[in-house]
Amino acid sequence: MVTSRDVAALAGVSQMTVSRVLRGSGNVAPATRERVLQAMDEAGYRPHAAARTLRTRRSATVGVVVADITNPFYPQLLEAVSGALHDAGQRMVLWNAPDPSDSSAEAALSEGTVDGLIFTTVTESTPALQDAVDRGEPVALLHRGLPSLDCDQVTTDNVDAGRQVADYLTAAGHERIGHLRGPELPSTARDRERGLRDRLAELGRELDPDLAVDGGFAHDRARAAMRDLLRREAPPTAVFCANDLSAFGAIDGAVSLGRRVPEDVWVVGCDDIAMAAWDSYDLTTFRQPITGMARTAVRLVLERIDDRSLPPRKETFPGALAVRGSTAHTPAPPPGREPVN
Amino acid sequence: MVTSRDVAALAGVSQMTVSRVLRGSGNVAPATRERVLQAMDEAGYRPHAAARTLRTRRSATVGVVVADITNPFYPQLLEAVSGALHDAGQRMVLWNAPDPSDSSAEAALSEGTVDGLIFTTVTESTPALQDAVDRGEPVALLHRGLPSLDCDQVTTDNVDAGRQVADYLTAAGHERIGHLRGPELPSTARDRERGLRDRLAELGRELDPDLAVDGGFAHDRARAAMRDLLRREAPPTAVFCANDLSAFGAIDGAVSLGRRVPEDVWVVGCDDIAMAAWDSYDLTTFRQPITGMARTAVRLVLERIDDRSLPPRKETFPGALAVRGSTAHTPAPPPGREPVN
Repeated sequence: MVTSRDVAALAGVSQMTVSRVLRGSGNVAPATRERVLQAMDEAGYRPHAAARTLRTRRSATVGVVVADITNPFYPQLLEAVSGALHDAGQRMVLWNAPDPSDSSAEAALSEGTVDGLIFTTVTESTPALQDAVDRGEPVALLHRGLPSLDCDQVTTDNVDAGRQVADYLTAAGHERIGHLRGPELPSTARDRERGLRDRLAELGRELDPDLAVDGGFAHDRARAAMRDLLRREAPPTAVFCANDLSAFGAIDGAVSLGRRVPEDVWVVGCDDIAMAAWDSYDLTTFRQPITGMARTAVRLVLERIDDRSLPPRKETFPGALAVRGSTAHTPAPPPGREPVN
Repeated sequence: MVTSRDVAALAGVSQMTVSRVLRGSGNVAPATRERVLQAMDEAGYRPHAAARTLRTRRSATVGVVVADITNPFYPQLLEAVSGALHDAGQRMVLWNAPDPSDSSAEAALSEGTVDGLIFTTVTESTPALQDAVDRGEPVALLHRGLPSLDCDQVTTDNVDAGRQVADYLTAAGHERIGHLRGPELPSTARDRERGLRDRLAELGRELDPDLAVDGGFAHDRARAAMRDLLRREAPPTAVFCANDLSAFGAIDGAVSLGRRVPEDVWVVGCDDIAMAAWDSYDLTTFRQPITGMARTAVRLVLERIDDRSLPPRKETFPGALAVRGSTAHTPAPPPGREPVN
């Protein structure tokens, strides 16, 4: 590797002079500066990024932490974050960290490898994350929130997701509504279940505890849970799944038993990833505004890199149901007849 | 941020002494060193990662470049690469770079932000990539290869993928075999088509040029291409798709026209990602050994980081057909009868 020593030798100056030119110091004669720059060109010298970072204390890189890159929701979210960072002249560093106690992203932040961090899958405030926030480091949460953490947070209104689904299924006349719950810790899973449960209670229909089972945010687990639900004596007539991935699992569970969706059972997801619109699933689901959320999280973290004194901001995006073929469009009743469901 | 100046003040020594302790220089009295280390602890001082990188010239980070993170094949490959790097005590930095002329990964390599690079979606040798290889930088290609580039490369035998599919479909009696081609540039797409074409020719059945159409490695494009094929006067009875994502599009194209898979048309994919086994697609496909390929690419790049004089190595993994419901299992013929297809 070409070093500044080589450049100094080639230009016939001291290493200190090369260093002054690199730093942009005014204390170098123009002719000397020119000679050094030419020598750098000739030698193919590239100032080490680490040296440049030491001078500016900026890496122009934002880290993103994700726990489950194989859930297609996250690649879609990361694509949007990556695009927004690119537009802002920043690079993205991704940590694929299924273990929440893995603090390498926070270490990179405090060490200056990245200027800020966006967490997409946080489920609890780990000591490393709390420390970073306490130190005023630029940290934002995207998609999942943590009410206890005083930092920028961008989420969809996931409570409203559950509420809208409760209204939709109740209006269609469903009496036995099932729920494939997400895992216990993510705010998204808890909020979606709470919205469903609270709204059903407001409508005078408790969520049957026997029909609310664990779908784990995962295809295989949701498929098994759906098969179990559908084999009951009184199976649900509609199932709200905590995310699209588990809704695909639910549909596949029904298909595997020879049940038809939506004739035998309605399935509703949450997220509206691209796959939800594919013909084989054609999934009715609650749409998160993924691009807008990603752009906002990027803006917030870049603003905080510039000004750490900003107060923590929490932005909640509204979402809406995208109705497709996994739920039957309620047919218009014949004249003089009430709708049957 | 706590600086070495703060540490020096706290320890009652010069900044130069703090710097000597950081460098591990022997030129510091043991008692002084102890006092400086204690002051670092008290002040919560963390030496800047950039400073550490300057000393070791190692970042313990490997960059991975991917062009289409929303094709679920890549998250699955990245998960495997990330796991292999983690096991080796390395971090992964991901560049999501749809534009092949984007050379920020190569820049990071030559600047020392990463110690090596793994390219998963290379389609041509860009000047930046060629330069990195010419400089002997640790660069490996994974999944897609570039015969013209003298660097470590790990691929599946994609020509054999096409050959195995040709044998399988021909043995089942298919006369009109269609092909949803991938894009023109990726080696995977070209090799898969070449294998199919060559093997069919060897078997005395040319690949009908009218039935080989562009599926673009993408769901939407493949869906449209399949719909077009199936509306022909003499549609294909079996279609080999250049990857699983386009096979899902092909199945959805058939579904959208009310055609049944496999009763009306067989569909075969390539990759065997997790989704291929889901009930709604139940896709027969050529399996790539994703985990083994990822681990090999990581090993090769780490070996080259340690020893740049190693000769370029090309490792080709064998794959095999995973037969599922998107193709009909050929029934055993009744006694005394030839199989009908």
